[in-house]
Amino acid sequence: MGDFTHFDDKGDAHMVDVGEKDITERIAKAVASITMQPETLKLIQDGTAKKGDVLGVARLAGIMAAKKTADLIPLCHPLALTHVGVEFTVHNSDNTIEALATCKLKGRTGVEMEALTAASISVLTIYDMCKAVDRGMIISNTRLLEKSGGKSGSYKAS
Amino acid sequence: MGDFTHFDDKGDAHMVDVGEKDITERIAKAVASITMQPETLKLIQDGTAKKGDVLGVARLAGIMAAKKTADLIPLCHPLALTHVGVEFTVHNSDNTIEALATCKLKGRTGVEMEALTAASISVLTIYDMCKAVDRGMIISNTRLLEKSGGKSGSYKAS
Amino acid sequence: MGDFTHFDDKGDAHMVDVGEKDITERIAKAVASITMQPETLKLIQDGTAKKGDVLGVARLAGIMAAKKTADLIPLCHPLALTHVGVEFTVHNSDNTIEALATCKLKGRTGVEMEALTAASISVLTIYDMCKAVDRGMIISNTRLLEKSGGKSGSYKAS
Amino acid sequence: MGDFTHFDDKGDAHMVDVGEKDITERIAKAVASITMQPETLKLIQDGTAKKGDVLGVARLAGIMAAKKTADLIPLCHPLALTHVGVEFTVHNSDNTIEALATCKLKGRTGVEMEALTAASISVLTIYDMCKAVDRGMIISNTRLLEKSGGKSGSYKAS
Amino acid sequence: MGDFTHFDDKGDAHMVDVGEKDITERIAKAVASITMQPETLKLIQDGTAKKGDVLGVARLAGIMAAKKTADLIPLCHPLALTHVGVEFTVHNSDNTIEALATCKLKGRTGVEMEALTAASISVLTIYDMCKAVDRGMIISNTRLLEKSGGKSGSYKAS
Amino acid sequence: MGDFTHFDDKGDAHMVDVGEKDITERIAKAVASITMQPETLKLIQDGTAKKGDVLGVARLAGIMAAKKTADLIPLCHPLALTHVGVEFTVHNSDNTIEALATCKLKGRTGVEMEALTAASISVLTIYDMCKAVDRGMIISNTRLLEKSGGKSGSYKAS
Repeated sequence: MGDFTHFDDKGDAHMVDVGEKDITERIAKAVASITMQPETLKLIQDGTAKKGDVLGVARLAGIMAAKKTADLIPLCHPLALTHVGVEFTVHNSDNTIEALATCKLKGRTGVEMEALTAASISVLTIYDMCKAVDRGMIISNTRLLEKSGGKSGSYKAS
Repeated sequence: MGDFTHFDDKGDAHMVDVGEKDITERIAKAVASITMQPETLKLIQDGTAKKGDVLGVARLAGIMAAKKTADLIPLCHPLALTHVGVEFTVHNSDNTIEALATCKLKGRTGVEMEALTAASISVLTIYDMCKAVDRGMIISNTRLLEKSGGKSGSYKAS
Repeated sequence: MGDFTHFDDKGDAHMVDVGEKDITERIAKAVASITMQPETLKLIQDGTAKKGDVLGVARLAGIMAAKKTADLIPLCHPLALTHVGVEFTVHNSDNTIEALATCKLKGRTGVEMEALTAASISVLTIYDMCKAVDRGMIISNTRLLEKSGGKSGSYKAS
Repeated sequence: MGDFTHFDDKGDAHMVDVGEKDITERIAKAVASITMQPETLKLIQDGTAKKGDVLGVARLAGIMAAKKTADLIPLCHPLALTHVGVEFTVHNSDNTIEALATCKLKGRTGVEMEALTAASISVLTIYDMCKAVDRGMIISNTRLLEKSGGKSGSYKAS
Repeated sequence: MGDFTHFDDKGDAHMVDVGEKDITERIAKAVASITMQPETLKLIQDGTAKKGDVLGVARLAGIMAAKKTADLIPLCHPLALTHVGVEFTVHNSDNTIEALATCKLKGRTGVEMEALTAASISVLTIYDMCKAVDRGMIISNTRLLEKSGGKSGSYKAS
Repeated sequence: MGDFTHFDDKGDAHMVDVGEKDITERIAKAVASITMQPETLKLIQDGTAKKGDVLGVARLAGIMAAKKTADLIPLCHPLALTHVGVEFTVHNSDNTIEALATCKLKGRTGVEMEALTAASISVLTIYDMCKAVDRGMIISNTRLLEKSGGKSGSYKAS
């Protein structure tokens, strides 16, 4: 197991130099899940179909957050993302909504943090919109699903 | 179980009117946890003591993110937070770091989302700084611990 | 007709001192309209009912833009808005959608610019989402409808 | 007339994938106009020549707003603009000031929204600076004048 | 000499709790100076009178930067400034322009950092606009001139 | 000595067109210094070694500020920086800490303003963290050390 790249030889934080890396297509997919009361999930599902579109607001929040990643994560590079998408899957069996965020870039560094940020802010927005009826919602299983492009190659979560 | 307050009578999203609410002290505490390989945790612990202060960077990211909450969560009110703090607890037993964020405000609306955002961005920053050595880290158990102040009274997670 | 308040005695721009003004409830309503091809309007109306919710996205964009007003308009004061809402009215007779933005604040200065910014960004977002099918859309009649609160009293557009 | 590109197959909003588009020079020009009382226009014209430079402030606001477009318009791509300019033309005949914004990019997507945002924020800033003397100003005729570059080719408003 | 307030008992950074502080009028004045070639100063002075208003742009940049202080300085509280002004004094004797920034707030914490940020960004903007003709400009003597309001009382630089 | 490039033929500010410039590696180094009481410097040095890491916070603030340069300096181009680093040197002889910022880009315009902004915000953050014990700190000698890349060639401060 190697060393952290976000620190220089003296152990000080820096935004690592990616100038020599190749411009390739970078893709990352990340997920985050939020678990709630069955009544809360029902309200969301009713709303999406009829009125009060919680998931529509949460999707947009996630897409916009991906564009703010370099503002939020101190050592992330500013990137000109070419694509951001957020999809929700409702799991009625365990009262959970999963957000899957996909980010793409033609650039010199990966977009894992952008996908993770999009997924995280999407489910936080669901929390915000439903917290008046259910404060005990829990966000879990936020992780990178897969990434491709760049020198470190592809990764797929087991 | 009531209705969602973030939608008006027609079901359209709005930033709910809090002008008639009282100015009281609002406090919220939220947590988020990140689980990693034991080697990764060891690198972080070594770094904090010696060089490469992952948790110092992550703490600052969380504090700054709390101030950006209204930019990230579409229907949150802009707030003049009076305090933000982020504390980390390392659980060696399960290779997990827990971030506990505390936010305070003298204002008309609660600061739950600010605390949740601070905790979430803190652990996402840990992910960012360690991802070169451990892509499989998982963030979980992101939730509101407690809140006080305001008409809806106090809440404490069970 | 008086002088511009946004310049000091020497004619230099400044953010005018509102520290001596009273904290009162400030309300402002502003509108902006966008005119398009009848086919474009039909696509939007179909989408809102079924899929591709142009107005839902545009509404959220307007609400979020209201919170960024002090970042956009150089001499505006940063404000802790207590309410933002955006409503759309479709005028099929002239293929126009009107955005009506309402902003509220308990504070020392008015929220006219916040309402105008919300309305403007809402219709610009409609333009963005429809421009692939109709580049000739025109935005017009962006103006303050009414405001109340503060020393200068109430205003109602004629 | 085609479909909206800002929604995916399921009708959900996304930031459309432009990764396969060519990097070409993109240029867009957009205008917005603000109509006011003749006395207001005279104050602006006096100020520009002598003191209280309304148009200088408004021009800068427009240029800076172009750089914030991806923050304001939810599904816009973040872009590294290579040029932004804003020019004002005073029409004394109808007490109107027209802002013409020009944006350029070497990139994968057009800059129409950047030009429209720059023009819109420029005239909103004029409103802000003059509203103490003239609340009834009206912004109109905000539209794309022309664009070139990219697969969809050139466009010129009729 | 006391301890740093920006760290808690464990030595970790936090945004210090100001919730118990009184709301009083806070005023701060800060300066920053930039020294240049005599020809550069002459170009600026000619421009301000005739065309190419370097100081007008720099003033606006300083005012807008004051509003971004909490975004830039990690442990600063977000504040609703009631006034920002920036004045320039040209010292021909030593080819220096001094920016004096004044910030005001009715609030729970001081505005020293806002004034220092406004002054600093003002002179950095002068550097930006003149760097094509004079890369060797030097910024110096950036400091707090005076502040008043709050428990720590008034301060005046010696 | 030439003319200012940030104004067009009419003397109006614009973001200069860099579309025809070559993409080359741009590097800039800039410094800023802050002078304080010997006791203050001792507190910082103790803290860095033990607890209360002033320089760690200041370094991060500088790195993040570099990414905000185009938001702060009105006519700067938005850039996708490939590297940002900030190093501090403590000069005990004159109670001064010097921040050296290095920025890199593969792009069409230089990164001098990014390096100057990073260095400036780093030392302003030191001021913020120490101001409770030493309000009289002075920032000086903020300047470009060297730059390379681009048509105007290399520069090295004498």
